[in-house]
Amino acid sequence: MLSDHLSITYAALADPTRRAILARLAVGEATVGELAEPFTMSLPAVSKHLKVLERAGLIRRGRKAQWRPCRITAAPLKDAAQWLEHYRDFWDDSFDRLDDYLGELQSAEKQDGRTS
Amino acid sequence: MLSDHLSITYAALADPTRRAILARLAVGEATVGELAEPFTMSLPAVSKHLKVLERAGLIRRGRKAQWRPCRITAAPLKDAAQWLEHYRDFWDDSFDRLDDYLGELQSAEKQDGRTS
Repeated sequence: MLSDHLSITYAALADPTRRAILARLAVGEATVGELAEPFTMSLPAVSKHLKVLERAGLIRRGRKAQWRPCRITAAPLKDAAQWLEHYRDFWDDSFDRLDDYLGELQSAEKQDGRTS
Repeated sequence: MLSDHLSITYAALADPTRRAILARLAVGEATVGELAEPFTMSLPAVSKHLKVLERAGLIRRGRKAQWRPCRITAAPLKDAAQWLEHYRDFWDDSFDRLDDYLGELQSAEKQDGRTS
């Protein structure tokens, strides 16, 4: 079930090579050849990853037939980051408080279990 | 290639049901039955999603044999958010400046192309 925008973005990010390609493109646009250089990977293999990134709207490719440089597009990354932002409380200080609270709930449930 | 931690997290997030389950668990721990309620989905189907989330370290399940409540664990979400943070510049104000800069680069390249 990968029909929604956010799922397509996360699926595209679920690969170290594709994340490395995005990291390279964050520095500036690059051709497929330039992107392939740091990897022990064929050009077709890199092109396949680029297609996944392009379908997810994470990169755009130039219109020049031969050269076609790739560049990063930010909107899907922003949406992906914003979804994760909702969970920030869980890794900030307040998480400890939530953890305590859940611990208390569990203890209360155990006691309920004993008395019923 | 889903062997690395970050890829496993993003792959787990690449599904609307699994994200909905995490949203529900952000409110508090819940049983499989409680998690299945809002979905038109069988318990085994929900259990399958929970296994993916558990393997990704995004949830933990209680040890009680019958009840086994699920709760969210934040560390992988934090890592996923931190990776995306590196790209914040692309969707903040500075993106416009970067965009202008890349535009200038392209114009310069076009001019180089004409003169060579």
